[in-house]
Amino acid sequence: MFAVTILGNNSALPAYDRHPTAQVVTIDDQLLLIDCGEGTQMQLSRYKIKRGKLNHIFISHLHGDHYFGLIGLITSMGLLGREQPLHLYAPTGMESIIRLQLEVALTTLPYELIFHPLTREELILDTPKFSVECFATRHRIPCWGFIVREKKLPRKVDREKAIAHEIPAAYFQALKQGYDYTRKDGQVIYNDQVTIPNTPPRSYAFCADTVYDERLAEITRNVTLLYHEATYLKDLEERAAARFHSTTVQAATIALKANAHRLLLGHFSSKYEELHDYLTEATAIFPKTQLAIEGVTFIVRN
Amino acid sequence: MFAVTILGNNSALPAYDRHPTAQVVTIDDQLLLIDCGEGTQMQLSRYKIKRGKLNHIFISHLHGDHYFGLIGLITSMGLLGREQPLHLYAPTGMESIIRLQLEVALTTLPYELIFHPLTREELILDTPKFSVECFATRHRIPCWGFIVREKKLPRKVDREKAIAHEIPAAYFQALKQGYDYTRKDGQVIYNDQVTIPNTPPRSYAFCADTVYDERLAEITRNVTLLYHEATYLKDLEERAAARFHSTTVQAATIALKANAHRLLLGHFSSKYEELHDYLTEATAIFPKTQLAIEGVTFIVRN
Repeated sequence: MFAVTILGNNSALPAYDRHPTAQVVTIDDQLLLIDCGEGTQMQLSRYKIKRGKLNHIFISHLHGDHYFGLIGLITSMGLLGREQPLHLYAPTGMESIIRLQLEVALTTLPYELIFHPLTREELILDTPKFSVECFATRHRIPCWGFIVREKKLPRKVDREKAIAHEIPAAYFQALKQGYDYTRKDGQVIYNDQVTIPNTPPRSYAFCADTVYDERLAEITRNVTLLYHEATYLKDLEERAAARFHSTTVQAATIALKANAHRLLLGHFSSKYEELHDYLTEATAIFPKTQLAIEGVTFIVRN
Repeated sequence: MFAVTILGNNSALPAYDRHPTAQVVTIDDQLLLIDCGEGTQMQLSRYKIKRGKLNHIFISHLHGDHYFGLIGLITSMGLLGREQPLHLYAPTGMESIIRLQLEVALTTLPYELIFHPLTREELILDTPKFSVECFATRHRIPCWGFIVREKKLPRKVDREKAIAHEIPAAYFQALKQGYDYTRKDGQVIYNDQVTIPNTPPRSYAFCADTVYDERLAEITRNVTLLYHEATYLKDLEERAAARFHSTTVQAATIALKANAHRLLLGHFSSKYEELHDYLTEATAIFPKTQLAIEGVTFIVRN
């Protein structure tokens, strides 16, 4: 399972029962939370998402609509008796805000909170099944996007062929890793004679808040699912630029240039009650576009 | 109009669509916000409460369920272009938390935020029509309750009698203030011959988070509407004491000892999905008890 569940899709001002940014990425039985606007803990309850599997939280930047719900979530996890450590990847400055608020309340959390300040583009989380990298976006204050990548999956062994070539079952693990097999008579059985490639690894890029920036298309090249903000419709391109945000057309253009498989649009301005025009404008440029509707889970699929 | 609208009635962990503490007091065309748990700005929208009339915010203490929604509300007011100053009455420590969060976001508010640190029991707001005092409650960290009092209303002039006594209309304002009238012939018309008392001034006491403390009954003596927390049902008296909270029976006992006219219970523990027992237990001791149900406006009336 590799999927993204939307908890909040609105820009700074909550409106029309749309919430500030928060997304849960499900991968390899782990939940990753990306951004944590006010009310995220309530949204997690509303959509029955299990906090126990949430061990990593990523905060893109320190505008409030992306993190004001964090201290409430951290505190509630403590009240619920959490014991396993919680990793927090966020811009420098996040730690002092959280520590200060715990301190004035005389709160000692029953679990360890591990801060990982974001300072440069790098691999920030590496597990056997997936990795997360951060990259800089161009916004009014330092801002980070994230790419979650599945690790390359092992090749699949064609058991019938392998047995026909007299390869012992004990060697199958090596075959999955791509090794050739040399028989006792010296004959080499090449790996691709007895295995087939697994499905290609998938990836999800969260482009955070950003002005139109073609560098993002390079960074997210060939990504499976690209989340790109589209605060405004295309007629407000100047306003978008002035506020370091993007329009529908700009988001779709980045997806096109990146050769993304699919595009997910979010961070809708509270100017707009109806979202239909977002879809119309973006699909005109990049047909495989969807809107990040709250409560919906988007499978990351090729 | 003197009334209290409940935006949040739950204790620390949001549950069952109940929100952390927040209440709006309507008095003399002003809105006062008491406490501001996470999600308060959404609750204000939900119940269509006009933020423009909100000029004074009171925070009882620095446990998150009483203030985590404050920074979001302050920021949103800025985004909405607020210009009039906003007064914030809160424990020492609140200002640095707010300033730090505005600073990391490089946010300059378009209005003035005026901090009034709570340091001792005193009158903290005085207007021609009402006043607000703060008082200390006994909780794990410094915690403050608030009493909102209407000013004494002017006496009502009995126009027929006043005219019969040959008192000129120009003197009626003085009569309302309680002055006697001396006629040209030297005869004194005593004030109570020509005026009747207005309705007695009403008051609302918000007792914040507190352990059972009989001093609160003295402080809130004869209050019209007493809000007292009742985190637990009566069987959990020990747990309540250990956590510096109160039970139904304790809240009702304070109301009884205070000779309050009515009692409002809130800050319900997320242990309880159903709230009916709160009412049963409290009314057994203090019949004029109501539960602080979210979205309900309670008129402060004698």
